[in-house]
Amino acid sequence: MTKQQLFGQIQKKRSFLCVGLDSSLDKIPKHLLKYENPILEFNKQLIDATKDLCVAYKPNTAFYECYGKKGWETLTETWKYIPQDIFSIADAKRGDIGNTSAMYAETFFNEKSSEMSFDSVTVAPYMGSDSVTPFLNFKDKWVILLALTSNSGHADFQLQEIGGDKLFEKVLKTSQQWATDEQMMYVVGATRGAAFADVRKLVPNHFLLVPGVGAQGGDLQEVCKYGLNSQCGLLINSSRGIIYAGSGEDFAEKAREEALKLQKEMEQILVNAKLL
Amino acid sequence: MTKQQLFGQIQKKRSFLCVGLDSSLDKIPKHLLKYENPILEFNKQLIDATKDLCVAYKPNTAFYECYGKKGWETLTETWKYIPQDIFSIADAKRGDIGNTSAMYAETFFNEKSSEMSFDSVTVAPYMGSDSVTPFLNFKDKWVILLALTSNSGHADFQLQEIGGDKLFEKVLKTSQQWATDEQMMYVVGATRGAAFADVRKLVPNHFLLVPGVGAQGGDLQEVCKYGLNSQCGLLINSSRGIIYAGSGEDFAEKAREEALKLQKEMEQILVNAKLL
Repeated sequence: MTKQQLFGQIQKKRSFLCVGLDSSLDKIPKHLLKYENPILEFNKQLIDATKDLCVAYKPNTAFYECYGKKGWETLTETWKYIPQDIFSIADAKRGDIGNTSAMYAETFFNEKSSEMSFDSVTVAPYMGSDSVTPFLNFKDKWVILLALTSNSGHADFQLQEIGGDKLFEKVLKTSQQWATDEQMMYVVGATRGAAFADVRKLVPNHFLLVPGVGAQGGDLQEVCKYGLNSQCGLLINSSRGIIYAGSGEDFAEKAREEALKLQKEMEQILVNAKLL
Repeated sequence: MTKQQLFGQIQKKRSFLCVGLDSSLDKIPKHLLKYENPILEFNKQLIDATKDLCVAYKPNTAFYECYGKKGWETLTETWKYIPQDIFSIADAKRGDIGNTSAMYAETFFNEKSSEMSFDSVTVAPYMGSDSVTPFLNFKDKWVILLALTSNSGHADFQLQEIGGDKLFEKVLKTSQQWATDEQMMYVVGATRGAAFADVRKLVPNHFLLVPGVGAQGGDLQEVCKYGLNSQCGLLINSSRGIIYAGSGEDFAEKAREEALKLQKEMEQILVNAKLL
């Protein structure tokens, strides 16, 4: 998917919501356990209930891998169920030496090899350029590079000063030599609302994938105040707040209600910013 | 496996060799393609041919994931085939927010969940403490944290100065607050031979996993000169140099020859260091 197509979807759906499919066997409604593949059934019902309200789905690979080969099959089938016009994110946080990152790119982008072809994959920057660039060899596919994450440990290294910059700022600067805003996005956690002003000085035009709204305590209005740009430039992820909104047979309706609340709030933000 | 048990295996086998199972369908001998699972057959024959010469096997997950669910099954079956007394490393370079890293820990350490229970997993440090510590909740399991890698991109961030330290030194220092040398190792690339002296100042007692000998140009003697400690403290990985030593029906014999060369060289190093 191109950047223009993504912005087109945002305008069409009046939403920049990403639903995180962090689906776990011990948290999904109990009545689903009778299905042959309970997590796949959970994901399918969630997608059916929210697909008109969001512009992206983001399964985190950890929640699938933990069930071994069966889980990997669930990930594959989940990808297949995501509508083609919705931006798909493999939240995998991969990264390795060049020839190995090239294999990860095959994993997430080459359907002939892996039966999956996500629009994007999250990548960790620690190993530098050749760990990231192999993902850029696929047309209209995206790297979403970790910059400033929403977890407590982010301060250990990301906020450390490197010659006047913090490490995450160095990542934002250096990585712009590898790809443009047509192929790279950044992860910036919502729990760092005020930091979006600093981030936008460095990457005014890039899309940012923003986890941490909801369960992790991030504030949507604050993120948008500092983070919105002329093509929206934000994908706001909510996982637990949506997918576990209900625990009964009506879990998908409850999920839809939560997604709808966020979509309505986003619509107003887009209107106020004259982006609709 | 405990640190003492690992050192015991090193003394018994007179080797500190790790064989990297980076097995790729387009590089394995052609006659294996007739098997139902060519890569699994390749790995099994390699393990049979080298298991008395090495103390560790390290499949890199990228080489399995790229084949989707079928590849994940190959990874599982490969793990099952690795003898219990050989240290197994899932070279996965994972790392995510705490509750998600906990799922990755289930993936690689909890056999009941994933059908796999490696002795260790490689983890990227960028997200800090809570991305690493969930892996430490498993007894006798190890985190192998990326410190100084062997790829060209390592200079982009790992060598950047943070208040007098380089980033990889900061990683070595900070991460020692999370685990002792009984549960944590570090990845230090062999292509940075002289850097081992600096690394050993910070982590004198830890085991180091050293990729980059062979195909990537690292020098075993130089690594050992600076890196060896009183319990050996080194796992030297060779992947392509061993597993692709031959391309015919005798590929396993050729692999054994290369592994034997390294084992003999390591034996002499251990004898000279009075560790045998």
